[in-house]
Amino acid sequence: MSEHQPTPRVVTDHPERIPGYTYGTDEATSSPLTLEDLARLKEAVWLTADDERALREAAEILADQADDMVTAYRTRLGGLPWMRPYSGHPDGTPNPEYGAASKPRFDRFIIDACTRPLDQDWLDYQHEIGLRHTRAKKNATDHADSIDHIPMRYLLAFTAVVIATAREYLAAKGAPAEQVDRMHSAFTKSVMLHVTVWTRPYVDAANW
Amino acid sequence: MSEHQPTPRVVTDHPERIPGYTYGTDEATSSPLTLEDLARLKEAVWLTADDERALREAAEILADQADDMVTAYRTRLGGLPWMRPYSGHPDGTPNPEYGAASKPRFDRFIIDACTRPLDQDWLDYQHEIGLRHTRAKKNATDHADSIDHIPMRYLLAFTAVVIATAREYLAAKGAPAEQVDRMHSAFTKSVMLHVTVWTRPYVDAANW
Repeated sequence: MSEHQPTPRVVTDHPERIPGYTYGTDEATSSPLTLEDLARLKEAVWLTADDERALREAAEILADQADDMVTAYRTRLGGLPWMRPYSGHPDGTPNPEYGAASKPRFDRFIIDACTRPLDQDWLDYQHEIGLRHTRAKKNATDHADSIDHIPMRYLLAFTAVVIATAREYLAAKGAPAEQVDRMHSAFTKSVMLHVTVWTRPYVDAANW
Repeated sequence: MSEHQPTPRVVTDHPERIPGYTYGTDEATSSPLTLEDLARLKEAVWLTADDERALREAAEILADQADDMVTAYRTRLGGLPWMRPYSGHPDGTPNPEYGAASKPRFDRFIIDACTRPLDQDWLDYQHEIGLRHTRAKKNATDHADSIDHIPMRYLLAFTAVVIATAREYLAAKGAPAEQVDRMHSAFTKSVMLHVTVWTRPYVDAANW
């Protein structure tokens, strides 16, 4: 490693330095899903080889915007008083330390959703993310005191904001409309694939 | 009613003639959700007054395309052998009667998602739709014999297809790109709102 190495400017740089980001490590939990389960979910969201190419293109465009995207999500969530106790203190007052600790992981999700191969490491870390939304692991990574469970309905509902607002970021670097369409469609499928897997800890196996 | 009234051509005409479509009637179940629950979900998907205007515009554009949209969804699902037992017979062979019986309701959903006020009738019928995906009511409306439970993960995952493919239908009548963007964003939020509420029967109240 060069002693003149610049400070990382974008979340694609050095994810291994992000506290609590256990992707691909023994610290991530083991997913209860199989690779065949994943193959079916990939078919259900209709993620094609062209979508995977479009996601790689999206990653280039979103790399230096992921932090702004997550800031925008949090601005929206912070504007909803009843939402604040899930990220702030239980009384809804802000918890900047928790926000700062969790943000690089959320930023990194944007890029991971565009770049990570869909393999066992992916399954394991997505299950870890799911658990971190529920009583199983919420707050534990960052030693926070917010409400220890995000209701599944809010996780799902807010996915609409992530998907709907993605278009402007995908278009921000001047890509042709047709390419923006391709990238937005692929991003929609990838986000729904991720969020679907994150719901596993909320639901009995017989219903999920 | 005129005796010269034309045959309905689009699903916006005469929904009361659709078998099993109990929207706004005493036959629909009662939702366990309150209007305050709904207000929060509407905030979580960020459905604004401008989105509601954009949805009304989308309804005009989608009215005579809804049937084609649902046909396209079913073509996709029918292309996945492991998905066929949920809409066909348990061995995966087609059940055209079930498909024909349920299609007008699915078509009508596309328009309802763009036009229905978010009120108690909405809550009740969305809960009814949710139940009809689960062991509580799957197959009952149409006396079908398909698998009696659609796993929640497939309901969520396939939402990506509904959202991603909507854009081409919204753009099909020559609306300016900016209007297509507005309508697609609003449609994304509306679909996620609906699907989120449909998940209620799958999940314990404490987790949902």
